[in-house]
Amino acid sequence: MDTLHELTEIFRAFPGVGPRQAKRFVHHLLQRGEDAEALSALAARLRKSVVRCELCRRFFTKEGSFKKCRACRDEGRDKATLLIVARDIDLEAVEKSGSFRGYYFVLGGTIPILDKQPEKRIALAALIARAENAAKEGLKEIVLALSANPEGEHTAETAARILAPLAKEHNIKISTLGRGLSTGTELEYADAETLKSAFKNRQ
Amino acid sequence: MDTLHELTEIFRAFPGVGPRQAKRFVHHLLQRGEDAEALSALAARLRKSVVRCELCRRFFTKEGSFKKCRACRDEGRDKATLLIVARDIDLEAVEKSGSFRGYYFVLGGTIPILDKQPEKRIALAALIARAENAAKEGLKEIVLALSANPEGEHTAETAARILAPLAKEHNIKISTLGRGLSTGTELEYADAETLKSAFKNRQ
Amino acid sequence: MDTLHELTEIFRAFPGVGPRQAKRFVHHLLQRGEDAEALSALAARLRKSVVRCELCRRFFTKEGSFKKCRACRDEGRDKATLLIVARDIDLEAVEKSGSFRGYYFVLGGTIPILDKQPEKRIALAALIARAENAAKEGLKEIVLALSANPEGEHTAETAARILAPLAKEHNIKISTLGRGLSTGTELEYADAETLKSAFKNRQ
Amino acid sequence: MDTLHELTEIFRAFPGVGPRQAKRFVHHLLQRGEDAEALSALAARLRKSVVRCELCRRFFTKEGSFKKCRACRDEGRDKATLLIVARDIDLEAVEKSGSFRGYYFVLGGTIPILDKQPEKRIALAALIARAENAAKEGLKEIVLALSANPEGEHTAETAARILAPLAKEHNIKISTLGRGLSTGTELEYADAETLKSAFKNRQ
Repeated sequence: MDTLHELTEIFRAFPGVGPRQAKRFVHHLLQRGEDAEALSALAARLRKSVVRCELCRRFFTKEGSFKKCRACRDEGRDKATLLIVARDIDLEAVEKSGSFRGYYFVLGGTIPILDKQPEKRIALAALIARAENAAKEGLKEIVLALSANPEGEHTAETAARILAPLAKEHNIKISTLGRGLSTGTELEYADAETLKSAFKNRQ
Repeated sequence: MDTLHELTEIFRAFPGVGPRQAKRFVHHLLQRGEDAEALSALAARLRKSVVRCELCRRFFTKEGSFKKCRACRDEGRDKATLLIVARDIDLEAVEKSGSFRGYYFVLGGTIPILDKQPEKRIALAALIARAENAAKEGLKEIVLALSANPEGEHTAETAARILAPLAKEHNIKISTLGRGLSTGTELEYADAETLKSAFKNRQ
Repeated sequence: MDTLHELTEIFRAFPGVGPRQAKRFVHHLLQRGEDAEALSALAARLRKSVVRCELCRRFFTKEGSFKKCRACRDEGRDKATLLIVARDIDLEAVEKSGSFRGYYFVLGGTIPILDKQPEKRIALAALIARAENAAKEGLKEIVLALSANPEGEHTAETAARILAPLAKEHNIKISTLGRGLSTGTELEYADAETLKSAFKNRQ
Repeated sequence: MDTLHELTEIFRAFPGVGPRQAKRFVHHLLQRGEDAEALSALAARLRKSVVRCELCRRFFTKEGSFKKCRACRDEGRDKATLLIVARDIDLEAVEKSGSFRGYYFVLGGTIPILDKQPEKRIALAALIARAENAAKEGLKEIVLALSANPEGEHTAETAARILAPLAKEHNIKISTLGRGLSTGTELEYADAETLKSAFKNRQ
């Protein structure tokens, strides 16, 4: 068993890491013994101490016996809106922007355009369960907060279709994030769709 | 007089062209004699045959004795809206997007944040004249279509301030293009302002 | 005839220039009338005042009735070596480096790997004529100074094959530039061939 | 104790990893439980099962009770040459190129230009010991195989100075890797030093 080689392979499977960088990671740990030990302890603890929130499905470090993350436990948030994101990191971006005070739901990914089994990619059943649950507590609007690219749009469309019956029954609005000029967009390089939305959403 | 050197210097002053590319341009012309001749003829003709539209200030190739560009001569466009852009190329991007059917005005540039003499950067006097003129023909809204960056925003603010008295007098709305997710924006990388606008403009 | 459009097309054909940059070039000239005039004059003069050196084939601005460039007219250079480059710009790089004091010859391009008619790409007939001429004046070595990429190597091989009979007859050595670590090369990223040459040429 | 946060910090300290990528690594492990466990086990084992070769100082996975890496145990290699590299990864690049059949020594890093204590950056004492040892076994040449950049050159100069007395005493040649065009170098962009070396090492 070749520890160097095996550890390199583990790092190679990390997102965005090539063979050279994987080797550098191993050498980094060889030179920093304490980091190797800390990493070993944390990686072992990870699956025990980090759990998925049973409401929004984001990962969070267990605190006591809570099964919900801090945001989902916060009764002061706006129960009328539920914002759907693809990944934990999107949730964090929205939360950090301070633009939203309702509840979240994390799909766990996006659906590639030609994918035949969307239910394997994102948590559609859990999404319906969460929305039904929220409907009983006054949900008025579901905001589909996906990226403005083909895969994001396809995922939003799929989620909207899945949620349609429930939305109709409970009179819940389904919305998507507004399009327009994002920070840094130069007019000259903006595509027609962005310019149309920007003109329509002018204020 | 060293033709090679002088011509290289002319090309070096072109926007975005470095010393190596300038040399390549000269060599391109050396190898394509007809292009050199055509360039010579066109460059000589440029200032005579291309004029600024007396209404929107874009450049256009003279056709007969017209002093207005094709869009400004088109009586079928919407006289209620005037869209203000920084440069000809922005006007073309908006026109190509098919999102706008009113009239245009080209400022001729943008105003750097700390600039003391904005009237030297952009055609503010002509802008007021154009807006006054349009006010008599039913203008209801001026759309400031500047890029979503600090210089664009500063330019929009300056134009808005300059236009304020006139807008008040004639009851003209001054608007700016809507902010939100532009095509390709990934949620994870969107800044707080973009996310706030995207949430606010959700639909 | 649309001057704006035609001039944009001329610039689009320039090496490395896209449609947007071509438009910017035209606007640059519209805003700088003197540059447009100077460009017109220089482009007209270009083919008359710039000639190809009849020995090395580089372009140079005519001085009096000289048919040879300054380097080819310089009797003080080393007649024993002739350095062959692909383009004028390569000649300038070598001359600027101060590493060479012999005479030059410019092929006028490189030969793509699968090209069937190399004689249309580079001046092979003129190369032989130049080498024969130099052989009479004491030529001892021809240095093929091509880029270290497949097209450069293919061009060097073709030139070497063409020159072989002449080289044999006059006992002229044909050499290529040395391989090794170039400035900035990091060992970790160096390919096997570079490392082999670097090891072989160690000193 | 927040496992998510702590683990993110460990990854952030990895070479070339930013805050976003560190988070992605953590999520990768959350989604792949087996990888988290394997990583934990390997990181724990790393310092016990990977040792530094007592001769060349590279890291290798322990095999039995060997204290030397495979290359240093190989009696069939050329005892006349010792090649000095900065890091394990450089050693691997040279070994993979097949250009060298002697023995290696890994300095463990490079020396920044203005560094006052080179002995803290690289294993100078061990280098001398290794060279003395090799001198007794027929060493004829030490090849300094450092990158062709200022820090690499400074490191090579320091090593050469340190080794000078020993080299003189035992009549050992100290050489550096050859400079020239490396694979992919385009003549037009080559600097003067590279061109000079390429011309000097022509063949």
